[in-house]
Amino acid sequence: MNRVYYPYEEFREDLKILANKIDKPFDAILCIARGGMTMAHLLGEYFDMREVYSVNTIGYEDTQKNESVEVFNIPELKSAKSVLILDDIVDSGDTLIEVLNVLSEKYPEVTFMTASLFYKKSAKIAPDWCVKEATKWIDFFWTVDLKQ
Amino acid sequence: MNRVYYPYEEFREDLKILANKIDKPFDAILCIARGGMTMAHLLGEYFDMREVYSVNTIGYEDTQKNESVEVFNIPELKSAKSVLILDDIVDSGDTLIEVLNVLSEKYPEVTFMTASLFYKKSAKIAPDWCVKEATKWIDFFWTVDLKQ
Repeated sequence: MNRVYYPYEEFREDLKILANKIDKPFDAILCIARGGMTMAHLLGEYFDMREVYSVNTIGYEDTQKNESVEVFNIPELKSAKSVLILDDIVDSGDTLIEVLNVLSEKYPEVTFMTASLFYKKSAKIAPDWCVKEATKWIDFFWTVDLKQ
Repeated sequence: MNRVYYPYEEFREDLKILANKIDKPFDAILCIARGGMTMAHLLGEYFDMREVYSVNTIGYEDTQKNESVEVFNIPELKSAKSVLILDDIVDSGDTLIEVLNVLSEKYPEVTFMTASLFYKKSAKIAPDWCVKEATKWIDFFWTVDLKQ
């Protein structure tokens, strides 16, 4: 598959676009680690919001070759009414779906919204806001820059 | 106080230096949100480590004007034996000291190590590894880049 490098400068501009698209209020940010962490950091600063949390996931194939996702380290959302969930890319959508399931079950009174930089048309779920369709493998700067 | 802008390119080079300084093994990364999140993301990728967690803190002055720090959203460290704690800057040191206290109490069997990009000579604790002394107010790129 073709690969494309995604540099910091492009990320910064895309994140500005994403921030401007988000037209509903939220009072906490929750990123899916590791992919959403840098986004969450910059958006937390941009929205002057200290309630920036992370959640961990592990994806694995079960014996029937279905993708299963385990979600752990779910944060205490305190008094949050509306939470913005962030990930870098919505690929199959399995991770985002399971994160939404687990969080909605634990916090039925909280509204969850989702945003990503990239999405694939084939994903089983579309984020509420996103910036670009992913048509190639993306080498995000946070994945490759320290190795160069 | 003089301010200095800290761009992504400088961060990337400093983080390479920091990564090379860390000469003890660890099996999980824990960042102090929000400041350590971007570092944790890139270092998690660099060390090919999916165990990247975050913890939240709130600092406030008590009635005697002492700085108090509340630490919350402490992750499950699973089977980690040695954890690298990350923050962008060790300023007074109060946050890092309290994070170490809380984590060491909850996980007495785990070894905790600390690293930051910047430190102040006046801090009450020195990180195990760091890169630069902070002599001015630092406008980190993650704080200001989306606002420009």
